[in-house]
Amino acid sequence: MAFSFNLDARDTHTAARAGTIATRAGKVLTPAFMPVGTAGSVKTLSPDELRDAGCDILLANTYHLSLRPGVDTVRRMGGLHEFMRWPGTILTDSGGFQVMSLSPLRRITEDGVEFRSHLDGSRAMLTPEEAIRIQDGLGTDIAMSLDELVEAQAPPEAVRTAVDRTVRWAARGLAERGRLRDAGLGSMALFGINQGGTDAIERGRCFERLAELPFDGYALGGLWVGEGRRLGLDMVEHDSRLFPADRPRYLMGVGHPMDVIDAVARGVDLFDCVLPTRNARRGTVFISTGRLVVKNAAYAHDARPLDPECDCYTCRRFSRAYLRHLFAAGELLGMRLASIHAVHHMVRLTRDARAAILAGRYATFRDQTWNRYHSGDTLVPTPGGVPEPS
Amino acid sequence: MAFSFNLDARDTHTAARAGTIATRAGKVLTPAFMPVGTAGSVKTLSPDELRDAGCDILLANTYHLSLRPGVDTVRRMGGLHEFMRWPGTILTDSGGFQVMSLSPLRRITEDGVEFRSHLDGSRAMLTPEEAIRIQDGLGTDIAMSLDELVEAQAPPEAVRTAVDRTVRWAARGLAERGRLRDAGLGSMALFGINQGGTDAIERGRCFERLAELPFDGYALGGLWVGEGRRLGLDMVEHDSRLFPADRPRYLMGVGHPMDVIDAVARGVDLFDCVLPTRNARRGTVFISTGRLVVKNAAYAHDARPLDPECDCYTCRRFSRAYLRHLFAAGELLGMRLASIHAVHHMVRLTRDARAAILAGRYATFRDQTWNRYHSGDTLVPTPGGVPEPS
Repeated sequence: MAFSFNLDARDTHTAARAGTIATRAGKVLTPAFMPVGTAGSVKTLSPDELRDAGCDILLANTYHLSLRPGVDTVRRMGGLHEFMRWPGTILTDSGGFQVMSLSPLRRITEDGVEFRSHLDGSRAMLTPEEAIRIQDGLGTDIAMSLDELVEAQAPPEAVRTAVDRTVRWAARGLAERGRLRDAGLGSMALFGINQGGTDAIERGRCFERLAELPFDGYALGGLWVGEGRRLGLDMVEHDSRLFPADRPRYLMGVGHPMDVIDAVARGVDLFDCVLPTRNARRGTVFISTGRLVVKNAAYAHDARPLDPECDCYTCRRFSRAYLRHLFAAGELLGMRLASIHAVHHMVRLTRDARAAILAGRYATFRDQTWNRYHSGDTLVPTPGGVPEPS
Repeated sequence: MAFSFNLDARDTHTAARAGTIATRAGKVLTPAFMPVGTAGSVKTLSPDELRDAGCDILLANTYHLSLRPGVDTVRRMGGLHEFMRWPGTILTDSGGFQVMSLSPLRRITEDGVEFRSHLDGSRAMLTPEEAIRIQDGLGTDIAMSLDELVEAQAPPEAVRTAVDRTVRWAARGLAERGRLRDAGLGSMALFGINQGGTDAIERGRCFERLAELPFDGYALGGLWVGEGRRLGLDMVEHDSRLFPADRPRYLMGVGHPMDVIDAVARGVDLFDCVLPTRNARRGTVFISTGRLVVKNAAYAHDARPLDPECDCYTCRRFSRAYLRHLFAAGELLGMRLASIHAVHHMVRLTRDARAAILAGRYATFRDQTWNRYHSGDTLVPTPGGVPEPS
């Protein structure tokens, strides 16, 4: 099947790795950040803008796409790549997280999750097998197993139950992919998801059993849900030590630049998060030197680009003053230009991380990036612009 | 001053003309359609997308820009071209139309129009002189005189009063530009606006006096405000016969493709309208063969582009099915892709018109374009897509 992962390099002083994932849709250099294309588009952006930003993989939401336009439509239009005209790699989630967070009703049984569509209220059932069939129907390159999520403060008993069920569901999903392959379908890769909340013993117990299943990669689930950054990073370190070196590791839902930097140091290869692009649509972007609230009136006359160190389309062409105006006027172009920067910034961050790993100097890169991010340089508005004639 | 108009060709059997306007910002081939960049952006589109669509001139709204971000900000940022990074020609309106249509209060006196900002309710006064100073402050290439508008069904006395005031205001605006030029400013071109509603005698009387003023071009005002297409075109024919051949003629607010085609035949050079792009943002586009409501569910499996005869970015890359999905899902990318087509379609229409005029066959072009538009070809949804494996 058309999936491979090559470990290109390990860093000297940290657990950071550089790798290459190959799928039917091409190569993905890791570490990699995946922008989120919830409903078949990374909000406001065209596929060419994603490519121009250096992006070679994106995430699409199975729950949203299966409700609208529906798997049948996507399949009839030639699959998700052809439908949205994205030639790169696509990873889809299982739909489980969205069912749990968006459905007005969700009831978990051993069979699966019963839920109501947040769009029309219709009832449906998402089983581990159905999650695999839907993702295959969408034409994804990398599918995720359906897992059972627990809340950050769930009692130990609930965590244990969820771990056991996650493992059983993982096996069922894998078996379903086997059946699809027997039928000439299911060529996608499939990742298992490790659970256990912030209980290292449970996470270890979960992975012990997942490791027996021939997944193409493994995800770190149930983290960054309110447990705190320190504890989250501890769990990342713990999981990564258990995960096999020859499979990609995906930390789900993580996307703050500094979290990415620290998780890469612990051995993570893949990330996804709506944070950078959602922030951007609200007028806030991450830049090399911190968090820039460009919609603030203070930037009304700031002639500098969002990030003077960035070479994205937006930063090459437009001023903070113009973006500030676009946000003040409610112009959609503002969301777009900020989103272009947001994706480019995250992709460049992971590309720079990769270069540092290949050079065996990731620890230095991490420290410098961290210090630069907390420097706040260029965040103070300047009354720039073209001087008035005196 | 950096403004010229060259009459490149006259059509053989109609009054259609092909010309070239040259401004500080470059050349504008006419007939030309100007997309509307109300608040400093043609909604959802980047300046590069406008260029790619073949656009060389756009219109910006003086009223909106003077309220937000304000003339001072635009001037400090180097003028509107630099602020929005649009290298082509910019024509600004006088602000009068928006004052009349958007302000919760407007009182017309001989001095000017008193109004309240629709944003913060603050009172302000727009005089003919101020309209010129604001447009010069924005850094426009072509400014418009402040005129007094009358409603479609205004009584004759009101029309006469408005005509008289429009002429006095035109003279005051021209004098103000003279003062600006004495001060080393005001290098922009200035167009006068003909009024008189649908009363040919009043329009003739208005133009008789405007013609005495050395405007760089003339606009047809007060049309397409509810008087009906037939009567509007009669007034276009009437005005165009009076207007001097060596100045550009601009029909304000007209943008339905078939109206543009018919007005070009009567001698108009310039058009602007929000209709194509506003429609596009709502999921309806003009294509060669009619009006396509792409947001309709009927297009959910239509694999064809919006317009199979169009070579815009959107039509080269995306299906109706995908656009339909984006509109159904409320994805901003849908508005964007439809807007790209909308601008491209209007620009191409006027470019094709120009080619026909240069070839002396505009009447044929008009008839063919009209017939094609009313053919409805390709508007019927097809259940396209990739065939299901049987």
